[in-house]
Amino acid sequence: MADTKKHIAILGSTGSIGTQALEVVAQHSEYFQVEVLTAQNNASLLIEQAIRFKPNAVVIVNDKHYAQVKEALLPHDIKVYAGENALASVVQMDTIDLVLTALVGYAGLLPTIKAIEAGKTIALANKETLVVAGELITQLARERGVNIYPVDSEHSAIFQCIVGEFHNKIEKIILTASGGPFRGKKRDELLSVTKAQALKHPNWTMGAKVTIDSASLMNKGLEVIEAKWLFNLSADQVEVVVHPQSIVHSLVQFEDSSIKAQLGLPDMRLPIQFAMTYPDRFKSDFPRFDFAKYPSLTFEKPDMETFRNLALAFGALQRGGNMPCVLNAANEIAVAEFLRDNVGFLEMSDVVERCMAKVQFVAKPNLEDYIETDKETRRLALEIINKKN
Amino acid sequence: MADTKKHIAILGSTGSIGTQALEVVAQHSEYFQVEVLTAQNNASLLIEQAIRFKPNAVVIVNDKHYAQVKEALLPHDIKVYAGENALASVVQMDTIDLVLTALVGYAGLLPTIKAIEAGKTIALANKETLVVAGELITQLARERGVNIYPVDSEHSAIFQCIVGEFHNKIEKIILTASGGPFRGKKRDELLSVTKAQALKHPNWTMGAKVTIDSASLMNKGLEVIEAKWLFNLSADQVEVVVHPQSIVHSLVQFEDSSIKAQLGLPDMRLPIQFAMTYPDRFKSDFPRFDFAKYPSLTFEKPDMETFRNLALAFGALQRGGNMPCVLNAANEIAVAEFLRDNVGFLEMSDVVERCMAKVQFVAKPNLEDYIETDKETRRLALEIINKKN
Repeated sequence: MADTKKHIAILGSTGSIGTQALEVVAQHSEYFQVEVLTAQNNASLLIEQAIRFKPNAVVIVNDKHYAQVKEALLPHDIKVYAGENALASVVQMDTIDLVLTALVGYAGLLPTIKAIEAGKTIALANKETLVVAGELITQLARERGVNIYPVDSEHSAIFQCIVGEFHNKIEKIILTASGGPFRGKKRDELLSVTKAQALKHPNWTMGAKVTIDSASLMNKGLEVIEAKWLFNLSADQVEVVVHPQSIVHSLVQFEDSSIKAQLGLPDMRLPIQFAMTYPDRFKSDFPRFDFAKYPSLTFEKPDMETFRNLALAFGALQRGGNMPCVLNAANEIAVAEFLRDNVGFLEMSDVVERCMAKVQFVAKPNLEDYIETDKETRRLALEIINKKN
Repeated sequence: MADTKKHIAILGSTGSIGTQALEVVAQHSEYFQVEVLTAQNNASLLIEQAIRFKPNAVVIVNDKHYAQVKEALLPHDIKVYAGENALASVVQMDTIDLVLTALVGYAGLLPTIKAIEAGKTIALANKETLVVAGELITQLARERGVNIYPVDSEHSAIFQCIVGEFHNKIEKIILTASGGPFRGKKRDELLSVTKAQALKHPNWTMGAKVTIDSASLMNKGLEVIEAKWLFNLSADQVEVVVHPQSIVHSLVQFEDSSIKAQLGLPDMRLPIQFAMTYPDRFKSDFPRFDFAKYPSLTFEKPDMETFRNLALAFGALQRGGNMPCVLNAANEIAVAEFLRDNVGFLEMSDVVERCMAKVQFVAKPNLEDYIETDKETRRLALEIINKKN
């Protein structure tokens, strides 16, 4: 009998998206075969996952855990690699059909490029890849005939809404935002926000970086840029509406005026699963939405004066070139330093804004330009933060 | 050059749906050619439409207007027919690609059957056709390879949501209902409702029959039955939720838990156009929905104790056979007599219920059984109403 399973690689299998993707795999083990699992630092969970899901190979990126993983998986006949470079090469393995990129931040860029070059279908959970280098990535995917399926709940919502309508023009898309834990607050109330407060998202359970980005609305800004590239839109075709209940995951308006929306309880397993099973939907036991528990769905304009990150992201998208890359790199540093209590909640936007003003603009960047921009921006962002302290 | 236009017949062109369909045709005259227009009584509007849209033929069903129409269209080289039988034969004309059935009530049944037998694509605005004889119609359509595209806004919403997903199982659908002008009212408040009050729909402008049905929730009941047949569902896969703003036109829940919805301002031109242009969407200048004007969308359970019609419709659907046909015929009489002030608003449900209890049940009706059931129910309904007065 031919092997009809879908063979998948999960980059970042020990993170929030990665572990939920493995839940989906476990529920549909007749359909999926795990080929590769990778983790940055979490060796013990990677070992546990590898023993359970029996991949062909694993990568532990931080090579100081290599010996531990190698030893643990020796009896299981699973190949073990370490380092960034291993990430970029395992995704090219012949046996892989689909690569789920669930790495956090800029680190997802190179492995995603390698996977596309190798012709692998991409389930993209690493939005920074498209934020940093959307033009390059989407052009490469077109050249290689590679499909990129979104995993972000908002982009999955839009993808679900345009299934069967790829020939029909999108007039605009409306990304919903929960507004995060600080919705309705003004700048003076946010001066003294703590790490712990910012890490409490009202609706979604996610990793630390995404949770802080959600609180600061940078996450929505990154999603605006991601959406532009995924769906081939201009900046003015992307709108954001704050929807505190996080039930409507996003909406598409077509040229005939019709709007389609995708809804459900906030549960990342659904968009993860859809990206892995498209064009099919698999029966799931995820909890069902019920209007009786949500008698009112509300919508309001985002407050871009308080949450300046969203305005900065629209600005970066309008400007184009390497500006989204600058925005992303500055934000990655700002969030990391916020989590180390080195920078205040509102000051994160200042860091981003100053980097956008200072880093050399490149209108048509190539991969080297992106790498250089990222490096230079990180250096500058740290300099700005350190000077301040 | 080959004629690539879509050739359409509009049955009921002078009604609310028919006139809006002609607006759509006028906006996209490069795409549509009107082949046939038909009207029951409105000869002067039919003449005006015929002169403007230059169909091959028109039918005036009420033959006392035949001479007037014939004379007016003589100089325009347009064939003119009269009578019910003409309706059933014009839909079979070779030149027709698509038949829009916008007749009101049971009258739509026979012409729709004839159109399906002739292999014409159906744009179905006449929900009673599927309510009365859903099994027969859908089986016939399958045999002839005929597609039936819904025009009702709720069913169009569901159809729009399942485009590209016909291979994926529907778990349930949720039909939205505005709740009509009497939402929130209890039975004692509805005893003395007048015709004028019932004819005022909060969100939609429609014909008199549909407007009364909307006020009594029978319209939603008929739509539940229509949906069952259109989307091949069981009665317990169809839910109704009251949504007073009429922005979310209906929702579909798939087996993976994902829900898709179609939204927009209440405007019948959109579903009419989609049924006529599917699988394409044509650019329109219909007014666009804006969340700024609808900051809150609300949802509540329908009150089936006050609005018993909805419960009766679910009951008829569960029972099956000729019961939906009884429900429909009894309701057509009840509404007509309500509009003549011969029966009270709440009493319409009593008439339907008594007919459902009294008319002979037929488990597997054929076309003759439906015709007989319809006739017998109408007789009985009138008898019940006349006895009372």
